[in-house]
Amino acid sequence: MRILITGAAGMLGRKLTQRLVGSGSLRARPIERIDLVDIVEAPTGSALCTARIADICQPGVAADLLQPMPEVIFHLAGVVSGEAETDFDKGMAVNVDGTRALFDAIRCVEGVPRVVFTSSIAVFGAPFGDPIPDDFHLTPLTSYGTQKLVAEALLADYSRRGFLDGIGIRLPTISVRPGSPNAAASGFFSGIIREPLAGLPAELPVSREVRHSHASPRTAIEYMIHASELDSAAVGPRRNITMPGASVTVGEQIEALVRVAGPATAALIVESPDPAIAQIVAGWPERFDTQRALELGFVPDESYDDIIRAYLEDDFATG
Amino acid sequence: MRILITGAAGMLGRKLTQRLVGSGSLRARPIERIDLVDIVEAPTGSALCTARIADICQPGVAADLLQPMPEVIFHLAGVVSGEAETDFDKGMAVNVDGTRALFDAIRCVEGVPRVVFTSSIAVFGAPFGDPIPDDFHLTPLTSYGTQKLVAEALLADYSRRGFLDGIGIRLPTISVRPGSPNAAASGFFSGIIREPLAGLPAELPVSREVRHSHASPRTAIEYMIHASELDSAAVGPRRNITMPGASVTVGEQIEALVRVAGPATAALIVESPDPAIAQIVAGWPERFDTQRALELGFVPDESYDDIIRAYLEDDFATG
Repeated sequence: MRILITGAAGMLGRKLTQRLVGSGSLRARPIERIDLVDIVEAPTGSALCTARIADICQPGVAADLLQPMPEVIFHLAGVVSGEAETDFDKGMAVNVDGTRALFDAIRCVEGVPRVVFTSSIAVFGAPFGDPIPDDFHLTPLTSYGTQKLVAEALLADYSRRGFLDGIGIRLPTISVRPGSPNAAASGFFSGIIREPLAGLPAELPVSREVRHSHASPRTAIEYMIHASELDSAAVGPRRNITMPGASVTVGEQIEALVRVAGPATAALIVESPDPAIAQIVAGWPERFDTQRALELGFVPDESYDDIIRAYLEDDFATG
Repeated sequence: MRILITGAAGMLGRKLTQRLVGSGSLRARPIERIDLVDIVEAPTGSALCTARIADICQPGVAADLLQPMPEVIFHLAGVVSGEAETDFDKGMAVNVDGTRALFDAIRCVEGVPRVVFTSSIAVFGAPFGDPIPDDFHLTPLTSYGTQKLVAEALLADYSRRGFLDGIGIRLPTISVRPGSPNAAASGFFSGIIREPLAGLPAELPVSREVRHSHASPRTAIEYMIHASELDSAAVGPRRNITMPGASVTVGEQIEALVRVAGPATAALIVESPDPAIAQIVAGWPERFDTQRALELGFVPDESYDDIIRAYLEDDFATG
């Protein structure tokens, strides 16, 4: 079993690598090699892994990565939402052209690998139903969501034509994200948990009534693993699947923090209303009915309490 | 008012040109010039029109067409469904890369033209609801539908960013198409009307139970005109709109032919099952609830009888 991971140096790429190295097998077969590709060097941590600094947008790079063809490709490389909005050309170059370069290279090399593509619920745009059904239309309101939609469409058609065997998974917001606070509008969803657990104050820019859908990093990685092992016949031609999330209000997140870490920790959250962030967040989806993913065996976090515990077990020590 | 039409030599392009020349105005302003672009020479028929042979996929061509920037662009150029399926690279080059080349050229020239893009109900893929609502998801089952979906996504995002002012109209199958059969898998929907009206036999490759949604060429042209004149504030960010159609079975088409032209004409239809065409058509939508288009003022054909009469009035003499 040879595996290729693009975007391997990112938070999810590193966790996916650890998970694969830890289990040593995928699709019930021993892993012989994991190629890690990113524009910065990905940590390897195992003799199974080879890290390579490369930009799949550049001519010939994608084809080189497919000699020989991996059996499973996790395509995580991408420009994140904030940057895709501020730098339109970069988002198009990486999220659309880079993805297409990879898919076209796969088409030109013998073999039909399983390609797991990390899409996003940003393919949806307000106004929504509540919950949002699996067959809800795709009207993104960001360039990031648009670019993910284009990549999803290509993934499905390239799969239908037998050029590759793709599964796109639309990830909800990942929390609790490890690391430092960032300027992303969604940053507070993780910050109000992560910072108090570290004994630091955290600003809450929106009302406690705001509802949002979350998956822990650990669960997002299990979604990727499951997507790599799914029987494509069971999936059929609709290759892009909305992943389940734990749908909770900010108030419920805080109640979970009280239960897991105590009221003194939760008291470090400071209400600091920010109308600009509140307006952005008001356009985000709140709750999905992900019947299809559940039927296909994707297993979500059971509660936000579990999401906090996953952070404490997986990331708290390293921050 | 300066107008640009891509794909101007095609059936709809020629009819659109005639319609614009005939009325002499658009958006309540006199038309000064219509530039007709296609890879073959489009008939002009008026001093208003200039025909140019050009391929917008080639570097620099799209930018040249925008000197000076037209106020309205009808982007009709495209590879049809059958050809996009048999020649994947050509479909991607024209339907995706050609469209993006045009949109990017618009972005780089001063001015924000209204761009009317002829999309297709091929952006939808079975299984469907019945009827298919305006907020139904986009899961095309052909490369043509995929390519139209990609172009729609770009149109919406380029509009949101203010690069252009786009309206995508998802046309149902156009019938009765005048002229000779083309490479579209949907050709028989017109053929079974057009050929018998000309006293010729016509092959029916699918069952009479097949239901499909139709618009006459005349109505499709009025959809384009209306889309060019719509207030974008009324449309909002969801720039791609499913057009209404007359939803009838093949059997009901034939009954309409009997009513309009008599049983002897309809008797020229010969059942000639073609599993390849039947399989493609089985993935096509049957009936839509196009509430949004109706609210925005798009006016459909009232019946399939009317569609046949429109053919007799507009095209029968010239065939």
